[in-house]
Amino acid sequence: MKNNFELIIIGGGPAGLSAGIYASRQKIDTLLITEDFGGLVFRKVGKICNYLGFPDISSKDLIENFKKHLFSYPIEVLKERVVSLKKEDNVFKVSTKEKKEFFSKAVILATGSVPRFLKIPGENEFLGKGVSYCAACDGLLFKKKSVAVIGGGNSGCETAIFLAGLDNEVFLIEAGNELRAEEVTKEMVVENKKIKLFLNYKVKEIRGTDFVEEIVLEGLKSSEDKILKVQGVFIEAGYLPASQIAKDLVDFNEKGEIIVDRSNFQTKTEGLFAVGDVIEGKYKQIIIAAGQGAQAALFCYDYIKKTKN
Amino acid sequence: MKNNFELIIIGGGPAGLSAGIYASRQKIDTLLITEDFGGLVFRKVGKICNYLGFPDISSKDLIENFKKHLFSYPIEVLKERVVSLKKEDNVFKVSTKEKKEFFSKAVILATGSVPRFLKIPGENEFLGKGVSYCAACDGLLFKKKSVAVIGGGNSGCETAIFLAGLDNEVFLIEAGNELRAEEVTKEMVVENKKIKLFLNYKVKEIRGTDFVEEIVLEGLKSSEDKILKVQGVFIEAGYLPASQIAKDLVDFNEKGEIIVDRSNFQTKTEGLFAVGDVIEGKYKQIIIAAGQGAQAALFCYDYIKKTKN
Repeated sequence: MKNNFELIIIGGGPAGLSAGIYASRQKIDTLLITEDFGGLVFRKVGKICNYLGFPDISSKDLIENFKKHLFSYPIEVLKERVVSLKKEDNVFKVSTKEKKEFFSKAVILATGSVPRFLKIPGENEFLGKGVSYCAACDGLLFKKKSVAVIGGGNSGCETAIFLAGLDNEVFLIEAGNELRAEEVTKEMVVENKKIKLFLNYKVKEIRGTDFVEEIVLEGLKSSEDKILKVQGVFIEAGYLPASQIAKDLVDFNEKGEIIVDRSNFQTKTEGLFAVGDVIEGKYKQIIIAAGQGAQAALFCYDYIKKTKN
Repeated sequence: MKNNFELIIIGGGPAGLSAGIYASRQKIDTLLITEDFGGLVFRKVGKICNYLGFPDISSKDLIENFKKHLFSYPIEVLKERVVSLKKEDNVFKVSTKEKKEFFSKAVILATGSVPRFLKIPGENEFLGKGVSYCAACDGLLFKKKSVAVIGGGNSGCETAIFLAGLDNEVFLIEAGNELRAEEVTKEMVVENKKIKLFLNYKVKEIRGTDFVEEIVLEGLKSSEDKILKVQGVFIEAGYLPASQIAKDLVDFNEKGEIIVDRSNFQTKTEGLFAVGDVIEGKYKQIIIAAGQGAQAALFCYDYIKKTKN
């Protein structure tokens, strides 16, 4: 593989894939580097029902459709992890974990986000021994057991519904006053008799011997602690933007999200665009990321064309 | 049908439909009013290849998928034309051509755009007599004929390719120095032997007796006029935002596009959101409009919830 391109897209979730398709259609000489395809979609349990055009599709099938679409174009794709991004003499240098280096005029950063850790005792110790950040990966190991889901946002609620469907007793724990999911999803949680809701509680410890045995809850609106006996703990405490490789080239907001010019998705560094879950924005959705990826690729085309003149 | 809703969405293109799905999932009491489904997608000839997840689909099938998706939710839909939008005492009033009136707390404007007229002699006179603004509607009437396509953007190029595929001789006329379409599309035009390209020419008159017989081109880089004998003229001179019903409630840019706060798609009027081709933005694409529709619905949910407290 050559190592000079007009554009390097970093990330293979909806934002990166949509950018890849649009870049290909503009005949931009493009390399897409990603460890995995699908981004967060890959972690999603249950059906996806809100991506316009697919009323009801599994995350696996949706990713397959996205990949098939990308690979219908002659785009270079490398499955590796990017560890560094620099700009020197107007050229971007992208380095991978396997110590390969690639150079380009423009970069689209679509690195998405990663699960947030609780940073509580037992969390690291029992990782893979009852503690999981991915119900889509590990959920099927739990059937007819007692499990806890930590976090009452969309992911937490969907995970609770999924685990309840495997005949588990599910404790859903949320620090706030109410669930923070889509209304249709909230309703499904409340109506599900296998899910026991603990609002205004946070988890302060995960305990066990070889495997998880119990969790300790701290009441935020009462002085009462609770101990729940569980065999599994699914942590859905939100996501953090995977923005660190760009830290010398971009500005961040207080959440660590990359700030872009929303008229063209360019960061403060000329030629460096960012899209999807890694950028500033309250709502993170597949269709939003895909729309932004398309825009960044089109504005990249303008940028590359301008630098040629 | 009742006439009070929490939200009224105006428009049934990709932006409006995506907004409708997200609003339904948030259990917002919503009415969607549109004359037609699909918006500009409906006018598109040939296959759609850039909407992530559908590598190659006809515009008709894509619209059918979109509609099916919307109607999988219990949303009220009215097929009428909206003629006026006002805000009085913090309530929006939406009036239709059939003199119905509806009221809501919030409105999402997704009215898209309409074809731009050339405003030249013969254009009105021969409408439906050789002059068309929609190759998807009228193109099949022309086979093995000579036809002109006016405008070398994406729509013009796609129309030229489509008409060439019907064994017509096609004259593609563009006022600028070069075609303004996606690179893959440009290449298809240039390689197509049935398409004759006229760059730096504008059309100054359409002539005929009962039907179109010829067009007069004015050379913009030469003093030479040309007359081309044609039976059909497809005008693809771009689109104008269909923004007039909101004129008292929004600010426009110099193109007549609605200016929104791009962090939440709200216009200068509280509770009035706008998305898709009707808002400011260089690139108009299905996936971009759909992503914006989703965002507006989610921010609308926040707005409606806030007004309840």
